[in-house]
Amino acid sequence: MTSSSPILKQTPKFLSALEGQSHANPPVWFMRQAGRYLPEYRAVRATAPDFISFCFDPEKAAEVTLQPMRRFPFDASIVFADILLIPGALGQKVWFEAGEGPKLGDMPSVESMAEKAGEAGKALSLVGETLTRVRSALDPDKALIGFAGAPWTVATYMIEKGSSDRSGARTFAYQNPETLDALIQVLVDATIDYLAMQVDAGAQALKLFESWAEGLSEPLFDRLVTQPHIRIIEGLRARGVTVPIIGFPRGAGTLVEDYAARTPVQGVALDTSASAKLGQTIQKTKTIQGALDPLLLRAGGDALLKRVDEMLEQWNQGPYIFNLGHGILPDTPIAHVEAVLERVTGQKVGQ
Amino acid sequence: MTSSSPILKQTPKFLSALEGQSHANPPVWFMRQAGRYLPEYRAVRATAPDFISFCFDPEKAAEVTLQPMRRFPFDASIVFADILLIPGALGQKVWFEAGEGPKLGDMPSVESMAEKAGEAGKALSLVGETLTRVRSALDPDKALIGFAGAPWTVATYMIEKGSSDRSGARTFAYQNPETLDALIQVLVDATIDYLAMQVDAGAQALKLFESWAEGLSEPLFDRLVTQPHIRIIEGLRARGVTVPIIGFPRGAGTLVEDYAARTPVQGVALDTSASAKLGQTIQKTKTIQGALDPLLLRAGGDALLKRVDEMLEQWNQGPYIFNLGHGILPDTPIAHVEAVLERVTGQKVGQ
Repeated sequence: MTSSSPILKQTPKFLSALEGQSHANPPVWFMRQAGRYLPEYRAVRATAPDFISFCFDPEKAAEVTLQPMRRFPFDASIVFADILLIPGALGQKVWFEAGEGPKLGDMPSVESMAEKAGEAGKALSLVGETLTRVRSALDPDKALIGFAGAPWTVATYMIEKGSSDRSGARTFAYQNPETLDALIQVLVDATIDYLAMQVDAGAQALKLFESWAEGLSEPLFDRLVTQPHIRIIEGLRARGVTVPIIGFPRGAGTLVEDYAARTPVQGVALDTSASAKLGQTIQKTKTIQGALDPLLLRAGGDALLKRVDEMLEQWNQGPYIFNLGHGILPDTPIAHVEAVLERVTGQKVGQ
Repeated sequence: MTSSSPILKQTPKFLSALEGQSHANPPVWFMRQAGRYLPEYRAVRATAPDFISFCFDPEKAAEVTLQPMRRFPFDASIVFADILLIPGALGQKVWFEAGEGPKLGDMPSVESMAEKAGEAGKALSLVGETLTRVRSALDPDKALIGFAGAPWTVATYMIEKGSSDRSGARTFAYQNPETLDALIQVLVDATIDYLAMQVDAGAQALKLFESWAEGLSEPLFDRLVTQPHIRIIEGLRARGVTVPIIGFPRGAGTLVEDYAARTPVQGVALDTSASAKLGQTIQKTKTIQGALDPLLLRAGGDALLKRVDEMLEQWNQGPYIFNLGHGILPDTPIAHVEAVLERVTGQKVGQ
């Protein structure tokens, strides 16, 4: 049976893993696989005036989404977009300055943003167009992932306006609990609408990036991460969205196990510090994804392949998607990516 | 029985907690309790030409160590010093620039540092003099803690020379494993000598600060954190040091439980993201310390006292030392410290 068979359509390996199946060679993709480590990405990026325009150009965004799929045997592609498109859709200005992180303008009132939350999908329909283009060009045995930044992570950027000091948002959470809870709810509503639109446009799985979960105390993590994730997933299910959902509570440490138990995600993405035992515990009920250190991928050498073997050994008995624990770094040698993919897929990759 | 009784000497509450005893009101101290949030600290600090000179002035260092003990009912004081004194003792230049983090000169060869490692205690004997002064001035029912930065954390500063980007040290660990292992061993040897000297000078407990454990994969954490901590503690015991030792693997997430099980520490300090369950699991065999969010202490309000109550509720059934999950922030209101101490000690504090 081949994946192109018109009669017996095979579920893409990535999606079957999210249904709880394990594979002799697990499905694999890399966070930020459409990125600056690829010369063909840099060539397209150079034609866009700025990063936000790039995200909103479906032709270019679809092209860079597909680039790593042509070059490598990845099992899934993730739409090229940014977690800060939602603040823009809610009326907060977002821009990127060369060599620096994102910058955000003043945050609009929660009331004015609440009025826009239900229209987030419409406001970001160009991301949907990218998804539709990618899905039509992608092999049927490859899966397409849509995503959004999770509410707390997006809120940290909205509150700090791009400062790299994340403590301001946590202080805001302590000092203005009602305002923060209202902001989180606006983001929950906007995220539901945005992700539902992505599924309508062709996304076959969704991922919630909670990139700034670290340092939160247990009660704050419950209030700002676990509960909003539950509300988003329940909201999507209520709208008839049935695709699998992966949650990525990066840096949440010992709180990840409880997150996995209580949040109705199908998959939990692990960060670089996840223990073998944590992954195995979660695998009793969910699929796990992760968690190779991008610094090790960049460094390469014997230590890299040894670590890949360890991860396969410890986690590939259960439902598992091979990935990094954080995004691939811009100066990662392509040969290192190929070496890892050979090990994971068991097939010759590259020259 | 009073603590000043010449006949029945009571073990300081802090030390009895490290022996596994629990208390109706747990012992309490705060990381960086001798610090800039106190006006009397700032007054003394202003008389020292630079931070390193300040650490090496036993009269001034002893004075600021004692200041919080006069003002608050803390059960333990920690010697005023810095985790970067060891690189200086090994021949690497260290200085602080106003408003910035530490700066370090080029790292000497591992061979030249290895020759100095066994003399670290002698090179840093002024810290011992501070300890002796503090111990002679401190009430008998208060304990005195000595400390050192743990090898991996100190190595990150030595390798990155003060850059705030910690990824360089992890990359170094991947690319130069033999050099890094040799550097870590030099730091293990220097730390043993330095801490043994501190105990000779009056320290009644020791703490290893592994401030940069976050992001390490499980095998790297074992190699760079757990094993070196074990070697330090075994080295101290071999030299006849019997005082209790606290390990603080900050940011280690799910790896903390295994660290607690395998490292022969008497106490494990937890960071702000520690779950109730993690602490309770460790309390079956060790004492825990922590883990109030310093941002919440600074923010104050009802949320602060509610969180203090939660922590006491979840952890004070077992051996427990109340503390922060990270150092107190310079702009923390003193009234917030007093409010927390009232709650923890059950006694009136301040005006």
